[in-house]
Amino acid sequence: MTRILLPLLPLIALLAGCGGTEPLASWNEGPPRAAIREWLAAVTDESGPDYIPVAERIAVFDNDGTSWCERPDYTPTTFQVDLARSFAARGAVDATAMPYRAWFESDRDALRAFGWREAYAALNHSYAGIEVTAYRDSARAWLAHKTHSRYGTPYTDLYYAPMLELMELLEANDFQVWIVTGAAQGFVRAYSEQAIGIPPERVIGSWTTPLYRQNEDGSVRLVRGEEQRYNGHENKPANIETRIGRRPVFAAGNSSNDQPMCRYAVTGERRGLALWIHHDDARREYAYGRTEGGLADLCRDHARAYRVSMKNDWNRLYREEAAEEAALTADPR
Amino acid sequence: MTRILLPLLPLIALLAGCGGTEPLASWNEGPPRAAIREWLAAVTDESGPDYIPVAERIAVFDNDGTSWCERPDYTPTTFQVDLARSFAARGAVDATAMPYRAWFESDRDALRAFGWREAYAALNHSYAGIEVTAYRDSARAWLAHKTHSRYGTPYTDLYYAPMLELMELLEANDFQVWIVTGAAQGFVRAYSEQAIGIPPERVIGSWTTPLYRQNEDGSVRLVRGEEQRYNGHENKPANIETRIGRRPVFAAGNSSNDQPMCRYAVTGERRGLALWIHHDDARREYAYGRTEGGLADLCRDHARAYRVSMKNDWNRLYREEAAEEAALTADPR
Repeated sequence: MTRILLPLLPLIALLAGCGGTEPLASWNEGPPRAAIREWLAAVTDESGPDYIPVAERIAVFDNDGTSWCERPDYTPTTFQVDLARSFAARGAVDATAMPYRAWFESDRDALRAFGWREAYAALNHSYAGIEVTAYRDSARAWLAHKTHSRYGTPYTDLYYAPMLELMELLEANDFQVWIVTGAAQGFVRAYSEQAIGIPPERVIGSWTTPLYRQNEDGSVRLVRGEEQRYNGHENKPANIETRIGRRPVFAAGNSSNDQPMCRYAVTGERRGLALWIHHDDARREYAYGRTEGGLADLCRDHARAYRVSMKNDWNRLYREEAAEEAALTADPR
Repeated sequence: MTRILLPLLPLIALLAGCGGTEPLASWNEGPPRAAIREWLAAVTDESGPDYIPVAERIAVFDNDGTSWCERPDYTPTTFQVDLARSFAARGAVDATAMPYRAWFESDRDALRAFGWREAYAALNHSYAGIEVTAYRDSARAWLAHKTHSRYGTPYTDLYYAPMLELMELLEANDFQVWIVTGAAQGFVRAYSEQAIGIPPERVIGSWTTPLYRQNEDGSVRLVRGEEQRYNGHENKPANIETRIGRRPVFAAGNSSNDQPMCRYAVTGERRGLALWIHHDDARREYAYGRTEGGLADLCRDHARAYRVSMKNDWNRLYREEAAEEAALTADPR
């Protein structure tokens, strides 16, 4: 019996690392799945030319729209607006003043006219001075009761099953998996470890530099400051260097915001792989992915960058049964 | 035989995690060693009141003067000055202009008059535009041939044996060990993984935000930018929050620069421990540690902060034989 199983041991080990399910089970056969398998086999083959030492196995995933659903509302912002609303309710924010009025009325035209950067800065400004732990607790409390307008499930159930499988497969092959997002870092960190197993130090997002405060009893607290740093576009590779200190060999994104990071991953000395998650599935999710520019261009120009059609390449969208069922039956909204 | 060894298994496992040597062998019996052992036993005891879950076992070590020797010259700066010198040699930096002239002549009075912050900024400015990988390679090349003026050994052999043992003991107990330093992050990262097993993502130092550049062939390179961020004093806890996202439960430092970080570690909800590495050993190293203010005050006021006398608490300074022998025999310089 042992002798019969012996040749299967590597496969068994692989399956064990993936929680017992087949790796990439939610992916249909097709170019992206084949590319992932071929690339992973090549870069982990110690005797091959594409071998990547364990220390250099860095994989970066964009969050919103790449790893979980970002429509119809951008979840991190929805939380921040609700948090500002709670401050307005107790008089700490003037709900009639701009840009708060526009945020609270979801008036995108008014926000655009005000300036997105300034509008986000004002939103962050309204929580300046609260403890970083209070912000984290608020995010957790919000996520515990909020549900998605179409699917009716908690937001954290809306991570894409194929992407979770991919993260697990990479981790089973000794990759470090990082989230690199334009969203507020403190929001994503509030749930990432519990929901998808990514610890806070592996979440790089837009951040607000905290301030040091010493209490009268000599104890230390950290409060949210005013200075904000945006982690988008070309800042993503720059912050990857500052925070990780190595060039990633895998990157996944869904928008032009992720193009520099994906380009960085596929143009280094090591053999990299990039995936463009293309939102073309109006039935189960939302069809809004652009078909040119940004990552579309990268996939056209670079042999190592692949377009993933959510409609055709994924046979399952969500891991949670309730979410998956809703994706198949609920009216798109 | 198995039955006899069974009760010893936890001890054997502990020893195995420390490379076969006794944990803290270079520490003399005394209050700091006893405090470390007692604290570690308490926070890893699942049934005890002080238990700290594995995910929260964050340990932060200052680098210069805490983990390795920083005298007579501050090594990271010595490298940066030598690098600027190489730029001056090919005409890229004017060696007669201030503050370069003062840097090249080690004229501390002139540097102080110029302003330390501005002097460091100018030093960093001279490498703006070079690839981040080129800076790293320069640091590695420099470390490969430079030796310490007193001990005659490579700088990376001058990590303190007791601190390396402590890092190893913490890691054997599932702690994440981070370096949190005021030194240039890129310099420390250039050697930390090879020399002391700390990967680049676990080094937080003063950094220069890199800039994204796309080459004509579509490939990406990152170059050093102009914007600098100093990781000292109160910035250390702030950057720990930004980078790690958890409050450390262990911190070690040697100067007032480390006081906020050590205070942060010992005043949280979890039972923390802080060590003040006090330079009082003129024979084997250098005696320059202050005896009041900063960490001295913290150790006086907080039961969880301990002074470590390098002279009395450490029976060995360096792990490398040549360095240790030089510490015992070479003339102090």
